[in-house]
Amino acid sequence: MRTDPDCIFCKIVSGDIPCFKLFEDSHTLAFMDINPANPGHVLAVPKEHWEDVYAIPDSLIAATAQTAKRIAEAANKALHPDGINLVQANGPGAAQSVFHFHLHVLPRVKDDALKLNWGPKPGDIGDIEASFEKIKAQLG
Amino acid sequence: MRTDPDCIFCKIVSGDIPCFKLFEDSHTLAFMDINPANPGHVLAVPKEHWEDVYAIPDSLIAATAQTAKRIAEAANKALHPDGINLVQANGPGAAQSVFHFHLHVLPRVKDDALKLNWGPKPGDIGDIEASFEKIKAQLG
Repeated sequence: MRTDPDCIFCKIVSGDIPCFKLFEDSHTLAFMDINPANPGHVLAVPKEHWEDVYAIPDSLIAATAQTAKRIAEAANKALHPDGINLVQANGPGAAQSVFHFHLHVLPRVKDDALKLNWGPKPGDIGDIEASFEKIKAQLG
Repeated sequence: MRTDPDCIFCKIVSGDIPCFKLFEDSHTLAFMDINPANPGHVLAVPKEHWEDVYAIPDSLIAATAQTAKRIAEAANKALHPDGINLVQANGPGAAQSVFHFHLHVLPRVKDDALKLNWGPKPGDIGDIEASFEKIKAQLG
């Protein structure tokens, strides 16, 4: 499998770095973003290391989008947010910070005025775990 | 095919409303957003009418993501933006305005400070057509 020893998401995929793992199948993984823009912020990634939307193979963007859909459904039922965005970033203008393709599943709060480049800040681990438990319960 | 007679994207799919069509396959369509947040803003949609990320079938979110990837590659080569986001919105908190699933392929301009709810405004048709021609040329 294509991997990068210096990539934080590859280390999460391998288990070398722990995560709040919501879902895993043969090609993808979904886990809580520990720098959440809003409560319930999740990342869906392919297990293989592909830098961005240009590099990722068709089959893996498809699989990652399907996993993001599954998470969005669960987060919507679990958290009843005012909306949910799927967001994916490529390049410096979009503030891509990890060069391993990832789809944000980002619950919205009315009038949160979030920017597309929202400026990640560490979240409260207790709050992240609470959202994790609620979403996980919906995933069954 | 699942369709909604009152849906603007269904009317674009059927050809009842014209569009700057970049790409079409059996399940998806990609065309210029006439309310561009930035130059080269494109929408990728499934031909079938599905309201949002919760409703769309797995096979069609996969197909639409693959079409968005194809457009992102072409837009990147054609326009050399500072970045590209894929963005998809669900519900009022995310300012979803058309209730037919769509993936925005949104070129970024450094320091554009775009919000996730960017507030659509009509673009200049000549400018939109110029971006269309450049992206279309890359699609071959």
